[in-house]
Amino acid sequence: MEQISSKDNEKIKQLIKLQTSRKARRESGCFVAEGVRMAQEALRCGLQIRRVFGTQDNAGKYAGIWEQLCQRAQEAYRIAGALEEKISQVQSPQGIYCVCEVPQVSQQDILQQGERKLLALDCLQDPGNLGTIIRTADAFGADGMILGEGCADCYSPKVLRSTMGSLFRLKIWTVPDLAATLTALQQAGFCCYGAALDETALQLGEFPFPKRCVAVIGNEGNGISPEVLSCCGHTLYIPMKGEAESLNAGVAASLILWEMCR
Amino acid sequence: MEQISSKDNEKIKQLIKLQTSRKARRESGCFVAEGVRMAQEALRCGLQIRRVFGTQDNAGKYAGIWEQLCQRAQEAYRIAGALEEKISQVQSPQGIYCVCEVPQVSQQDILQQGERKLLALDCLQDPGNLGTIIRTADAFGADGMILGEGCADCYSPKVLRSTMGSLFRLKIWTVPDLAATLTALQQAGFCCYGAALDETALQLGEFPFPKRCVAVIGNEGNGISPEVLSCCGHTLYIPMKGEAESLNAGVAASLILWEMCR
Repeated sequence: MEQISSKDNEKIKQLIKLQTSRKARRESGCFVAEGVRMAQEALRCGLQIRRVFGTQDNAGKYAGIWEQLCQRAQEAYRIAGALEEKISQVQSPQGIYCVCEVPQVSQQDILQQGERKLLALDCLQDPGNLGTIIRTADAFGADGMILGEGCADCYSPKVLRSTMGSLFRLKIWTVPDLAATLTALQQAGFCCYGAALDETALQLGEFPFPKRCVAVIGNEGNGISPEVLSCCGHTLYIPMKGEAESLNAGVAASLILWEMCR
Repeated sequence: MEQISSKDNEKIKQLIKLQTSRKARRESGCFVAEGVRMAQEALRCGLQIRRVFGTQDNAGKYAGIWEQLCQRAQEAYRIAGALEEKISQVQSPQGIYCVCEVPQVSQQDILQQGERKLLALDCLQDPGNLGTIIRTADAFGADGMILGEGCADCYSPKVLRSTMGSLFRLKIWTVPDLAATLTALQQAGFCCYGAALDETALQLGEFPFPKRCVAVIGNEGNGISPEVLSCCGHTLYIPMKGEAESLNAGVAASLILWEMCR
């Protein structure tokens, strides 16, 4: 197995770019699953693994999983431990890095016949919120998520970690024009609910969600953009009793997922 | 009005300590409400304001609120704009800092007769989660929150900001021994539900919460400590359909609050 000890090695430079640059991830269609837990989830969910990198010490410490990774990955490399401080995005690196392909999700995957519960995000920008929402959508059995332009990158290391592996299990469809996508969904029989701070809207918990539906959550500060909201057949309000003016976007999405999927 | 331009001024040193040290907040019983929004909420909620500090520029820019603050605070100071980089905890400081007294909440405030919906936290450590939970509890009209030892400090700048003012409206009772407090609550007629990853527990959404109840949420990684869980009359599980093993603690608390207060 090839050993790499220089940070100037082209493969190491590319690995670091994939950890730190959304543009690099987008152009290559790859991302990095770092650490034992993420590597296990990548194996379990059948992700395509292009390359795996392991430090001497830690590939030995996690020998079982390292061996599986070497079998599944197209290429495997041993790297010097000293490189980790350049590569790792966590405080306690575990010396295992998998370059995985972003799973391709098509309109067909999302719009299948029958019961479908979907969540769409419009310009949701906080990585922590995005990670939380992906984890909740997986937990409640949503059938997929749609990310419009302007959302945080779900394959960034921070989002990936906070999803606790849910990112690999949930179908996530990234679309260039969310308004057009919602229009197409409604033509395919979906009811579309835009979450809005409008007390005259439909009240969450007081109506049943139909079998085919999509709920839309907007940006943390500004809500859903007017263009996207105008494509939603319904608006949806989460009733509040106190004086708080709004909920955290991750909480709002989680409550809607809970009611939608129950 | 006294002008302060030195970072070595005792009042400035104390202000910085209150921004950065939990110990200083605990010993003095005070915290800092920074910025226009927080100052407005502090005024509106009738907090005791000991001191207010305003930079030349910004106290002028926000003249209306600055005047109200000067009337309500025991002491008011103009400070040099250059001091802000030492004092402020945000990226775009607004030049207004109020030293407020932590509201005193007693057992009587929390245990009042009649309908009471309470949330208790056991060693919840993430400031972002704590802020989110306080905001949600206020939004759904919970009657109070109980924080055990080991929780993040709700008066830290980060938590305070993320509550969006809800911290000033909600009754928050900090207790040294959560297990003992829960025992006392149950003697006062409360049903106590500990959230646990136990599928044999009561399922959220499948039973009605009684009029007097307290739900307990535990630490992000370890859940509720065994000692505290043994004091809960019931355990509570949030049913999950997907393969996710758990929910974010802030999401779990929010879902329980939604069901408890609906």
